[in-house]
Amino acid sequence: MKKLINNPENVVQEMLSGMVLAHPEYIRKLDGFNVLVRKSSPIKGKVAIVSGGGSGHEPAHGGYVGKGMLDGAIAGDVFTSPTPDPVYEAIKAVDGGAGVLLVVKNYTGDIMNFEMAKDMAEMDSINVDYVVVNDDVAVENSTYTAGRRGIAGTIFVHKIAGAKAEKGAKLEEVKATAEKVINNVRSMGMALTPCIVPAAGKANFTLEENEMEIGMGIHGEPGTHREDIKTADEITQHLVSKILEDMPLNEGEEVAVMVNGLASTPLMELYIVNRKVNEMLQEKGVKVYKTLVGEFMTSLEMAGCSVSILKLDEELKELLDATADTPAFKVL
Amino acid sequence: MKKLINNPENVVQEMLSGMVLAHPEYIRKLDGFNVLVRKSSPIKGKVAIVSGGGSGHEPAHGGYVGKGMLDGAIAGDVFTSPTPDPVYEAIKAVDGGAGVLLVVKNYTGDIMNFEMAKDMAEMDSINVDYVVVNDDVAVENSTYTAGRRGIAGTIFVHKIAGAKAEKGAKLEEVKATAEKVINNVRSMGMALTPCIVPAAGKANFTLEENEMEIGMGIHGEPGTHREDIKTADEITQHLVSKILEDMPLNEGEEVAVMVNGLASTPLMELYIVNRKVNEMLQEKGVKVYKTLVGEFMTSLEMAGCSVSILKLDEELKELLDATADTPAFKVL
Repeated sequence: MKKLINNPENVVQEMLSGMVLAHPEYIRKLDGFNVLVRKSSPIKGKVAIVSGGGSGHEPAHGGYVGKGMLDGAIAGDVFTSPTPDPVYEAIKAVDGGAGVLLVVKNYTGDIMNFEMAKDMAEMDSINVDYVVVNDDVAVENSTYTAGRRGIAGTIFVHKIAGAKAEKGAKLEEVKATAEKVINNVRSMGMALTPCIVPAAGKANFTLEENEMEIGMGIHGEPGTHREDIKTADEITQHLVSKILEDMPLNEGEEVAVMVNGLASTPLMELYIVNRKVNEMLQEKGVKVYKTLVGEFMTSLEMAGCSVSILKLDEELKELLDATADTPAFKVL
Repeated sequence: MKKLINNPENVVQEMLSGMVLAHPEYIRKLDGFNVLVRKSSPIKGKVAIVSGGGSGHEPAHGGYVGKGMLDGAIAGDVFTSPTPDPVYEAIKAVDGGAGVLLVVKNYTGDIMNFEMAKDMAEMDSINVDYVVVNDDVAVENSTYTAGRRGIAGTIFVHKIAGAKAEKGAKLEEVKATAEKVINNVRSMGMALTPCIVPAAGKANFTLEENEMEIGMGIHGEPGTHREDIKTADEITQHLVSKILEDMPLNEGEEVAVMVNGLASTPLMELYIVNRKVNEMLQEKGVKVYKTLVGEFMTSLEMAGCSVSILKLDEELKELLDATADTPAFKVL
């Protein structure tokens, strides 16, 4: 296991310390909990947005805490849902009286624990609601999921719901916008290599030297199939085709594209993938309004990528373009 | 070779296409040359800043083309200096009459080719000057270098010289500020795994399963030594100590820190490294004014990291904080 870590048991704690030391102008950590909140939390009268999940997907989600995106992020153990307690603490720390929207990725443990925290906070008379992101078109049901998995499309929810909340919208309006994003975003990924959970010390699956897995989840959950590595163009064609089968796009429609690296795949390769995504959309007469290329939702040191496509309307375009200032995502 | 590419011969061309398609609001490509310039180039009356080098270090350097940083970036073949012609074309495309500063990393080929391009541009009566970044304290002289190598500290030069030029400074002032950064920045890196140049198809060196190389260059050039992997804290201690031996820091001094991932090392691990960097500086009474953690100067898919420390004065702090808006680096 070649990792830059100390004791594998302490990776999440030490990572959070390193994050707060790096970004004190943005975030602070709640004492005794693996929760990051905005330095200025709670913000009176603003709907707060909270997300989180297992660690190992950085910068998701702590890197998105800041103006125009999240108010708080809970970091579970690596690839493990946080328990209800830290989620409840996050909700209490960020509520400014206008309520809290939880953005939950569709994993059974996450949903159970975020729901439980919501119930706890409601007993304190905090208004809490939640949305579930399930953008991964690869498979219905999976190792940790009933229905579809939530993956990199979640970042579009953070950005757009965050901008809506920043504009002063009410909780039900922020939730409606978040759900509009969820209804209009689709993703699919693939992996070239597995990754190693530090505490386990070995990969949770293996791939042959010339093999890739299509539709792989961000925790190494099985995808649709394995096959010999193909060219970037062929792989991209497959991912985008599956997305477009699920969410057909018509000529003249506008989209945002995210080409997301799972960690070990160089930016060079992500741009090569983006070239083909763009070409396929152009061929259909679909207009790419905005493109994001980088590492937004990773899987420890896994190699591979995912493609996300978000269908836009005027509201979503405006909110996507709104100012954001967080450690990992900035819009001027 | 597990890479998301098509023909290995075309990776740079296809990457640049993917970049321009992703960021048309920032950059355009010069016809017939692997050069990216600001969409709005040339900017009349502003000193232009140009950098470049071999590809495989993305987002360096094309990702830093935009307001407050570079005006143009030349992409050579992977790990190969660009020839003088594209550098000359870049200079001509960005010169707005106030001259052009070239930011060159200290590699023999880069210096020769950028100097030649400078001579060509001067025959066109364009005022050109250059600085050489040599921040890597690991080794004197190396595979491709006389003197010290230029690595991730280069990004501080882009940011700070870019801000100085944006404020309307003259060429000699921008150069003086760039040299101040170079005189005050030191870096050192280490690698856990090698990387594969696409056209070669195999790694240019090997490391044993439990081995790392300290002081490794960003093209796999030898470092100071190899040894068994140690903890993140021990590795960080070694890197920072070597930096501080070369550039002692006194109590009360202020610095900027960059923890740079070479590509495959997850952000989680970079933050764990940052925790220790910060602790060591705090113990010395050195104030960390600004921290950057992420992938700024990569080495294809190499695993490992570098640490850079920049000693600050009031001018450098102000310029570091100035607005920047580029695909890969933004300051609001």
